[in-house]
Amino acid sequence: MNTSALPIHLPTELQGFRLDHIGVAVQSLEAALPFYQLLGLQVLKSEEVPSEKVKVAFLNTGECHLELLEPTSPDSPIAKSLEKRGPGIHHLCLKVQNLPELLQKLDAAGIQLIDKVPKPGADNKRVAFVHPKATGGILLELSEPLPGDSA
Amino acid sequence: MNTSALPIHLPTELQGFRLDHIGVAVQSLEAALPFYQLLGLQVLKSEEVPSEKVKVAFLNTGECHLELLEPTSPDSPIAKSLEKRGPGIHHLCLKVQNLPELLQKLDAAGIQLIDKVPKPGADNKRVAFVHPKATGGILLELSEPLPGDSA
Repeated sequence: MNTSALPIHLPTELQGFRLDHIGVAVQSLEAALPFYQLLGLQVLKSEEVPSEKVKVAFLNTGECHLELLEPTSPDSPIAKSLEKRGPGIHHLCLKVQNLPELLQKLDAAGIQLIDKVPKPGADNKRVAFVHPKATGGILLELSEPLPGDSA
Repeated sequence: MNTSALPIHLPTELQGFRLDHIGVAVQSLEAALPFYQLLGLQVLKSEEVPSEKVKVAFLNTGECHLELLEPTSPDSPIAKSLEKRGPGIHHLCLKVQNLPELLQKLDAAGIQLIDKVPKPGADNKRVAFVHPKATGGILLELSEPLPGDSA
């Protein structure tokens, strides 16, 4: 469906609500990457994130990146997801603003949250996850860059 | 993970490879939408697509939209997906260029394609699907706007 011509009139406070990346659980980056490279996608960045027990590769797919995630330990959340659900999309990440206030609003409305308050994420961000039951089956990460002075 | 500062140097022929939308299977738009609206996302467009037997609502999440899909018939592909896998992400759509050539290249490399040649999609596009077995568990739609003179 062609959405490129749709009118977009966003109030300023909502302009930060953009899909940032799609997390994809894979058994092996080495096995998964050749298809995406054949497709012509570029690996923007590849690194190990010890705190999450994963190796990640970011593919350049425009504003919203594909983030391939390979577990580095059997107790990595990604290893558990692979075991339960097999490979595929693990989560969506939406970049938001005023995350603590947003979480309070969602919680007050009875939305099932995995994190009621933000927790530290990689790269100087704070993040919180919304339960798939609340979103229609999607594990949704809400992410906000921390201000320079750490709010 | 902060990808906003990553360097992006794409050759011209790859600049069209961007995530266009994420298709999400829902039992009911009416039941699914309130959460997203509470989150502050706007419905950009809502319509019925009889050829696909779905009602869709596009949510404004930046360059890559969320497309909520509600089946309008039990034999809609979305109804079957809901039955098999429950609600959640159904497919990713990547906007590409030179789709027929790309499909030939993927096919020649032994990639499992659902459509070896493009088929007409909504809104004057041609599309083809790549099998989840080839992508690491993702049903991947490749989509290309048809030129004005219909190539």
